[in-house]
Amino acid sequence: MTRRAALHLIPTAHPGDVSGLEALIDQGRLSPPEIVAILGKTEGNGCVNDFTRAFAVAELGTALAPRLGLSRAGVLAQVAMVMSGGTEGGLSPHLLVLTVENTQEPATGALAIGTAFTEAFHPEEIGRMAQVEATARAVREAMRQAGLSSPGQVHFVQVKCPLLTTARIGEAVSRGKAVATADTYESMGLSRGASALGVALALEEVPRAALSDGVIGHDLSLWSGRASASAGVELERNEVIVFGTSPEWAGDLCIAHAVMRDAIDLPAVQKALRGAGLSTDGGQLGPEEAGRLVALLVKAEPSSHGTIRGRRHIMWDDSDINATRHARALVGGVVAAAVGRTDLFVSGGAEHQGPDGGGPVAVIARRQ
Amino acid sequence: MTRRAALHLIPTAHPGDVSGLEALIDQGRLSPPEIVAILGKTEGNGCVNDFTRAFAVAELGTALAPRLGLSRAGVLAQVAMVMSGGTEGGLSPHLLVLTVENTQEPATGALAIGTAFTEAFHPEEIGRMAQVEATARAVREAMRQAGLSSPGQVHFVQVKCPLLTTARIGEAVSRGKAVATADTYESMGLSRGASALGVALALEEVPRAALSDGVIGHDLSLWSGRASASAGVELERNEVIVFGTSPEWAGDLCIAHAVMRDAIDLPAVQKALRGAGLSTDGGQLGPEEAGRLVALLVKAEPSSHGTIRGRRHIMWDDSDINATRHARALVGGVVAAAVGRTDLFVSGGAEHQGPDGGGPVAVIARRQ
Amino acid sequence: MTRRAALHLIPTAHPGDVSGLEALIDQGRLSPPEIVAILGKTEGNGCVNDFTRAFAVAELGTALAPRLGLSRAGVLAQVAMVMSGGTEGGLSPHLLVLTVENTQEPATGALAIGTAFTEAFHPEEIGRMAQVEATARAVREAMRQAGLSSPGQVHFVQVKCPLLTTARIGEAVSRGKAVATADTYESMGLSRGASALGVALALEEVPRAALSDGVIGHDLSLWSGRASASAGVELERNEVIVFGTSPEWAGDLCIAHAVMRDAIDLPAVQKALRGAGLSTDGGQLGPEEAGRLVALLVKAEPSSHGTIRGRRHIMWDDSDINATRHARALVGGVVAAAVGRTDLFVSGGAEHQGPDGGGPVAVIARRQ
Amino acid sequence: MTRRAALHLIPTAHPGDVSGLEALIDQGRLSPPEIVAILGKTEGNGCVNDFTRAFAVAELGTALAPRLGLSRAGVLAQVAMVMSGGTEGGLSPHLLVLTVENTQEPATGALAIGTAFTEAFHPEEIGRMAQVEATARAVREAMRQAGLSSPGQVHFVQVKCPLLTTARIGEAVSRGKAVATADTYESMGLSRGASALGVALALEEVPRAALSDGVIGHDLSLWSGRASASAGVELERNEVIVFGTSPEWAGDLCIAHAVMRDAIDLPAVQKALRGAGLSTDGGQLGPEEAGRLVALLVKAEPSSHGTIRGRRHIMWDDSDINATRHARALVGGVVAAAVGRTDLFVSGGAEHQGPDGGGPVAVIARRQ
Repeated sequence: MTRRAALHLIPTAHPGDVSGLEALIDQGRLSPPEIVAILGKTEGNGCVNDFTRAFAVAELGTALAPRLGLSRAGVLAQVAMVMSGGTEGGLSPHLLVLTVENTQEPATGALAIGTAFTEAFHPEEIGRMAQVEATARAVREAMRQAGLSSPGQVHFVQVKCPLLTTARIGEAVSRGKAVATADTYESMGLSRGASALGVALALEEVPRAALSDGVIGHDLSLWSGRASASAGVELERNEVIVFGTSPEWAGDLCIAHAVMRDAIDLPAVQKALRGAGLSTDGGQLGPEEAGRLVALLVKAEPSSHGTIRGRRHIMWDDSDINATRHARALVGGVVAAAVGRTDLFVSGGAEHQGPDGGGPVAVIARRQ
Repeated sequence: MTRRAALHLIPTAHPGDVSGLEALIDQGRLSPPEIVAILGKTEGNGCVNDFTRAFAVAELGTALAPRLGLSRAGVLAQVAMVMSGGTEGGLSPHLLVLTVENTQEPATGALAIGTAFTEAFHPEEIGRMAQVEATARAVREAMRQAGLSSPGQVHFVQVKCPLLTTARIGEAVSRGKAVATADTYESMGLSRGASALGVALALEEVPRAALSDGVIGHDLSLWSGRASASAGVELERNEVIVFGTSPEWAGDLCIAHAVMRDAIDLPAVQKALRGAGLSTDGGQLGPEEAGRLVALLVKAEPSSHGTIRGRRHIMWDDSDINATRHARALVGGVVAAAVGRTDLFVSGGAEHQGPDGGGPVAVIARRQ
Repeated sequence: MTRRAALHLIPTAHPGDVSGLEALIDQGRLSPPEIVAILGKTEGNGCVNDFTRAFAVAELGTALAPRLGLSRAGVLAQVAMVMSGGTEGGLSPHLLVLTVENTQEPATGALAIGTAFTEAFHPEEIGRMAQVEATARAVREAMRQAGLSSPGQVHFVQVKCPLLTTARIGEAVSRGKAVATADTYESMGLSRGASALGVALALEEVPRAALSDGVIGHDLSLWSGRASASAGVELERNEVIVFGTSPEWAGDLCIAHAVMRDAIDLPAVQKALRGAGLSTDGGQLGPEEAGRLVALLVKAEPSSHGTIRGRRHIMWDDSDINATRHARALVGGVVAAAVGRTDLFVSGGAEHQGPDGGGPVAVIARRQ
Repeated sequence: MTRRAALHLIPTAHPGDVSGLEALIDQGRLSPPEIVAILGKTEGNGCVNDFTRAFAVAELGTALAPRLGLSRAGVLAQVAMVMSGGTEGGLSPHLLVLTVENTQEPATGALAIGTAFTEAFHPEEIGRMAQVEATARAVREAMRQAGLSSPGQVHFVQVKCPLLTTARIGEAVSRGKAVATADTYESMGLSRGASALGVALALEEVPRAALSDGVIGHDLSLWSGRASASAGVELERNEVIVFGTSPEWAGDLCIAHAVMRDAIDLPAVQKALRGAGLSTDGGQLGPEEAGRLVALLVKAEPSSHGTIRGRRHIMWDDSDINATRHARALVGGVVAAAVGRTDLFVSGGAEHQGPDGGGPVAVIARRQ
């Protein structure tokens, strides 16, 4: 018996919209017990006070609970939920529902998906080596679960990670523990960075000896070319979803990835598209190729040095629009230019995820 | 004697930064009397309270006044100043200084530039046929001045136009006149729209019989494929800059244009690039071609129907970030993907400038 | 048998936080069947894309459903939910849970609360006389239900009203009906305005003959001194909560109101406080008086003429922060100055609710 | 011969508006050589990319240069310019032009004004003791110049201070010097904090022994009750304006101050008003008293602990509106409630300026 992964891309009308998911289930096109993870782009600001993520998670849990015979908490314990806020520019809010089913089909060497969770972190572990190493263990566990035996088979690792809140910091302090930062917004970046370095460690992109508390968030020369991490207030553990190619899996989906060297690295996007069997002659995918694109996942971040190929950008200096919002809009434009679609998973905050100002891009497509 | 046009692209460190312009003048590389117009991207919000435009104009006037032996007002009467606010995403603030000089060189069929101004408008004329027709006359005058004898020779027309303020509306009302709108933000769109239709009329893109007060801002099927209009509080007349190709002009600059059908129409951008002699094999311009790109000017606007190729965008519903800011960031990403540079003139508010959700794009390049 | 009204002010940690409500219920201090309405201030932007309101309503419904033996939809059909987005400045997010219980206590002439709902509106009715008149009927029904026999007994009427969405407009158009506006943001104001005029009609503040479709949103000289309307996408009908003083009700709560002539009308706030038995000697309530304050409800809106007592404000011209956000922050400061607390129900958008730039203010307090 | 200070409050129509100043000069009501300082509230965001401050300074310099027979740089070297960005809520943009003239009038014990400048700071001095001590020396110099012989005679000290930019940091690094922070936004707070502690040192509010690099920005228990500091990119030195009461000065102006314990401390505002001879019976100044108010200067800042009198505020968590913008709107509402006017100098960022969440307030009024 082999396994087959599927992705269901469902447009949403607002952050609490689960009608599309419910319709697929009611039509028998999606079986709730097969759901292993749900990724989503919601239309909040993607920053501290973005409650669209929690709203979406709550409604997804409420919708699935009766269909899985679980409480809402039970659903959230079983299904990894990665909501990424921010659909700036032309990005289109949507859900990506990931399912895995057993099948009698022959294995074809197809997309494989595995998930794993760490234990809940103590606040003082966030943004530090404890989080790096726990994440690395979870990545290895998710690989094992997916039957991905070597790092080379892995093309993308999506991590949802916690952040520090004033309450959590206070709890740590009351136990005499110091946290990595007292700035809650900054803790989002440290948590993402530690998570990405955990992926890099598991995928052997960065040696253990190069890692220490001090490099997290500081030494940007250390990075994973396949990690994508997103921080949220709604969880205390890391949730890991590994995407790879396994000879043991069935189906017509394939995955490829590349690393954008900067925010306007169209050639890298096109390389990932070609890797997944999508021709890019003439620049933008034609309608047939665009139709075979199942998902594009990419990280966006302003370069720390304030320039793109030597020309000044204003993302860091804009006190009206957060820098990550600018970056998502920009990278969203670049990838939409490549594929001719806007329902793409562009996620902000790429600490240790690709080089400074760039980031990993992964493409999942249906084979011709 | 022939004429030769030149464009000087000058990065700016902030909206009041004229040091780059002054350095070029001091180095003898730019002669102040040859300046006919200055376009600029400034880093404000591009909306009602964007004072970066006025700040830039004031400082440019102050810097040029002693160098031209004029008062600041005298400079502004002579040199068309088109500051466009908003460098969202990765766009890089810069000035484009346009000069025209007489030369002994042979005419080569090169970029030609002409400028003209309308009379100051009465408030009640803004956004109405009076503005359409005065703009059309100014376009014809600028063409005549540039030696562009037919509409087919024109590739882009940049217009700076006024808007209604509470004070100007009050003045009209005190004379018993009704204005097109009492909403000052809305007046920006009507003024841009009337100006664009004036360009369309002069370039014979839209017949006179199709035009009336009622269609301005409403019938989006009427548009110019070469107009770009920008509204600002700092002027009361329309300032028109016509770009074309004339057999009577010298130099190595050429221009081409295309019309983006929507905000992610990369093929249209690539068509304009090819038209100006820039190869786009492989998607993004290589360093050599990018180096020959002198200026790219494009309009950006959210589609009125709330979707891009059938997928929902959230630009109109975001009460934190103005829709035009989203659109500039998005289109900035698309054109930067094409050319590998971010110092591009992406301007928002494309009423009657290209189809709904799209807009004209013009490319000025140095010949190989 | 008499009735007694109570208000439970519950601070919230985030828009989906129902833990405080659940704790009160679990402690036996609040009986779910007695809940007639829940008002809340949530920390979104209070504008079009403020999903904190819907999030709060969803979680309140989810929390109450098992405790009332109803579905979530059943809860929402029974309990009026008025979430008001926007806690700018120092305002503190909170819920106000309104309960009514039967009691053996003697009637004392105390706070009386009544609720009523209109039918769902057709889109073409919103912002027009149909909404005005249906609202007036609902106000009269809520008065009757509360035993308030004359308009003079009514001190405040809170209305939650629908708005037009692109989908709703399309539905109307498909039936050949024209809507009051095609601008969804503008529809919020028209819906609030029509609702407020409905209150004014029921309370005999404005005669029926003065009302017509044309005055809604335009003739700002027509207003209610006791209406507060809030628009939200989550409903299609008007939900009306009437607050008054009735000789037939028991308990120690009393209510008073006044009308702020402009946004800085501290004397009006102090008049309402005094009306509810709270002394304001020295300007700000002392701790004892502040402790007896149960709720302060007030409307905030920028004056349409752009000035406050002749001095320019910039609320309408700020394209980064919506005008209603400025107004809530300002009025929040004024009322917090008066009472020395920040958990106040300051709601934006005061069309026909008090004079231009001002608004009604109501105070509910415990008697000494 | 005695001196007399005067303040001219001039409303502005936009940040570059100097027409009111020019009119006063042209009417002979204000003599340019008597101008010692210009304070202004401009309508930008008050944060990093607020160019309205620099625009205002540039236009003021341009306007005064010919009237003083100086270059623009010469004007700025002589006249202290303190532009404070941010007129959130209902605050009204305006200029406060401070003049000092010699007079034959008898000394009355009136408002005295003195100004002084530090040397330009090296970047590594900003936010550190070097800035503290240089500021203290400048305060003493300004006191001496104003004839204020003891700290008790001083009621308010306004400081304009520099910030770190990427370029300035790079310059220091190139000399092998470390700066206090690499975060340019954070440097604004450190510079304001060091400046405020310099005032506290000069006014003997904090002993020298309590001060060190380490307390700046960290030990919020150290503060001045009379300092107000504003950071701007347009200068490299500190500019100090001292306001006090001196028996040697003439005129009918007087000054008083108080310290707001938190953002809603109306009683402190009323205490300062009474100190300046303005009665506050009934809460808000009546028209006559409001007319005698010449200027109200106050600092605003969100409390670091996230609450106001125990109730949560959302200022720090709002990623759409900067926390200082919320704070100015809030405090603007509180002080406008007190005085019935909105043309008030409410300035954000109160590090070491009053207690955590509060700040100094000064009132300048005409005697009855």
